[in-house]
Amino acid sequence: MLKRYLLAPGPTPVPPEVLLSMAMPMIHHRAPDFVPILDSAKKGLQWLFQTKNDVLILCSTGTGGMVGAVNNFFNPGEKALVVNGGKFGERWTKICRAYGLAVEEVPVEWGYSIKAGAVESALKKDPAIKAVFVQATETSTGVYHDIEGLGKVIRNYKDTLFIVDAISALVAQDLRTDEWGIDLMIGGSQKGLMLPPGLAFVSVSEKAWKKSESSKMPKFYFNFKKERETLAKNQTNFTSAVTLIIGLNEAIKMLQSEGLENVFKRHARLANATRAAVKAMGLGIYSKESPSNSVTAIEAPAGIDGQLIYKNLREKYGVTGAGGQDKAKGKIFRLAHLGYADTFDVITGIAALEMVLKELGYNMKLGTGVAAAQEILMQ
Amino acid sequence: MLKRYLLAPGPTPVPPEVLLSMAMPMIHHRAPDFVPILDSAKKGLQWLFQTKNDVLILCSTGTGGMVGAVNNFFNPGEKALVVNGGKFGERWTKICRAYGLAVEEVPVEWGYSIKAGAVESALKKDPAIKAVFVQATETSTGVYHDIEGLGKVIRNYKDTLFIVDAISALVAQDLRTDEWGIDLMIGGSQKGLMLPPGLAFVSVSEKAWKKSESSKMPKFYFNFKKERETLAKNQTNFTSAVTLIIGLNEAIKMLQSEGLENVFKRHARLANATRAAVKAMGLGIYSKESPSNSVTAIEAPAGIDGQLIYKNLREKYGVTGAGGQDKAKGKIFRLAHLGYADTFDVITGIAALEMVLKELGYNMKLGTGVAAAQEILMQ
Repeated sequence: MLKRYLLAPGPTPVPPEVLLSMAMPMIHHRAPDFVPILDSAKKGLQWLFQTKNDVLILCSTGTGGMVGAVNNFFNPGEKALVVNGGKFGERWTKICRAYGLAVEEVPVEWGYSIKAGAVESALKKDPAIKAVFVQATETSTGVYHDIEGLGKVIRNYKDTLFIVDAISALVAQDLRTDEWGIDLMIGGSQKGLMLPPGLAFVSVSEKAWKKSESSKMPKFYFNFKKERETLAKNQTNFTSAVTLIIGLNEAIKMLQSEGLENVFKRHARLANATRAAVKAMGLGIYSKESPSNSVTAIEAPAGIDGQLIYKNLREKYGVTGAGGQDKAKGKIFRLAHLGYADTFDVITGIAALEMVLKELGYNMKLGTGVAAAQEILMQ
Repeated sequence: MLKRYLLAPGPTPVPPEVLLSMAMPMIHHRAPDFVPILDSAKKGLQWLFQTKNDVLILCSTGTGGMVGAVNNFFNPGEKALVVNGGKFGERWTKICRAYGLAVEEVPVEWGYSIKAGAVESALKKDPAIKAVFVQATETSTGVYHDIEGLGKVIRNYKDTLFIVDAISALVAQDLRTDEWGIDLMIGGSQKGLMLPPGLAFVSVSEKAWKKSESSKMPKFYFNFKKERETLAKNQTNFTSAVTLIIGLNEAIKMLQSEGLENVFKRHARLANATRAAVKAMGLGIYSKESPSNSVTAIEAPAGIDGQLIYKNLREKYGVTGAGGQDKAKGKIFRLAHLGYADTFDVITGIAALEMVLKELGYNMKLGTGVAAAQEILMQ
């Protein structure tokens, strides 16, 4: 028997309460039984997104929400500014280009965070830019981008939408949709929300709805106007992912009973403990600035392949983290502390890491990282 | 306590074995644990689709599969022939038009089935038609269209794709993808496959892949070429709907142990019993030709609103069927016998219907419909 521990930046572990709620018999998505369920999910998401805007519920992965944030609001040839500081920044560029937008990238070195000034300069130079696309947490590098700071800049440009992929940041970071002027914010089910993959969420501001009226791109499955109309009737445009929405209510109930501020504190505490442990073990954090509270990207020690660390964690100790992607492949590995995560998930991850590194010949006293994590976790 | 019975044409009841398999802890979609799961799902779908073609697995409702069947294969302005005999025929037209295809409809009166000759005449008249779109079962009217007959016609047109929405027909009807020359066949999880909503399946023929090379439509989320490449590695392009795919394997295992021929016979038996009961009660079947084995559309007796029958079935007896849609609204109601359905689901539906009709003043001896159903169910 090898007991399994899921410490990946999504999918994340699903709490037993949620698993059991989803094992209830099926109900019909157009029958009155489902109305209060969708109504509750809708309101719960508004609470989590800290918004009065509609939060659409889509049956797709988070990427479907990202696609919808492009094809409902723009026209081919319109200019978009993409903050590209990793694999998911690249995804914004790819989606925008697939739909014919003229993309200008603000490149950010992997492991670093965007400076609001760089976006401000680009917007000043080219007032035709219709949107700024960014990740809240760039999962590939473990960096949290300063969404509040970007919001302060972008809100001065009345024809520019501020579009935030918060798929892996939601729940782990305090993201104030309305207060910070985020026009579109995208979430996914299988990250901080502790659910299986299969739902995307998109909050849409009035400014964005207004801009959507000019969009002529072909759309059918991700048709936000239709989704808004059906959401008002506590339905979704096509068949609702009934099971996942029932689970969503259960997950939100858990987060609400903990309290939003405590949820953010818990994630900060786990992230701090992980980073302290990593440093105590003599390893580097790949995120040189603004490390995220969702996932920690850790540099492999000289001479040891990061993919091998990831592999041994999983195969020898049952701990599934994540490797590095693209140019970070082999150089880093990642441990998440996201969603249904607490003290001993961090301890498990760090202890397993110590054992793997020791076996790979890394010179370190066992327990060093664990002790550093404990110091913080006990506070 | 009001015990609930789900007799709707999707979502359908999910068997306890499937519910429990989906309540297992989450696993990671890129870790090796998931490889045999996706491999098994892939092969199981080929068995069910009766095809050697790839069957793509998408995280969306069935409609997402329909959209993908348009935006991966065609270009704006290309001609499409749509068989429109109900609400879902209309959906093909709407999707094709959303993506700029030039649609010619073959209208079919609601409640009737398409004649292959009508499609043949249209193809003869206009050799530029690049695709014929049809439903296997038109859920809104309860009609099964003759897919085998259409296949015999369309296979003679080497530049024309045969595209079948089998979302509500799959499992209930014998659909021979390869033998009948179906280029794209779309299925969904929440119908005959006895799963919650959230997965679409699309089989793609070599002829269709070849045609896809000329398609220049914008695509990102439903990018079939990328899905094919990742499927070959037992992955999906974006995050896999892990839970639903685990449930899919469990559902397919149940169908395989029953045997495909027996699965079809069971659905035919339940459909026959339902129709016999309806006729014995003096009611009309809305499907005047080729009634489907998935769902029976039943005419409300003169002077009784079909929506009221649907409503009373649900509210007084806990039986969720379906009402009529669009022009059939009020005239009909529907009872499904699809997926996880057997003898006493039919008996329950018919007995409840008798009680509702009696209460609404319909002149009929209680037990008449049940007895007629029993005659067939005992065979």
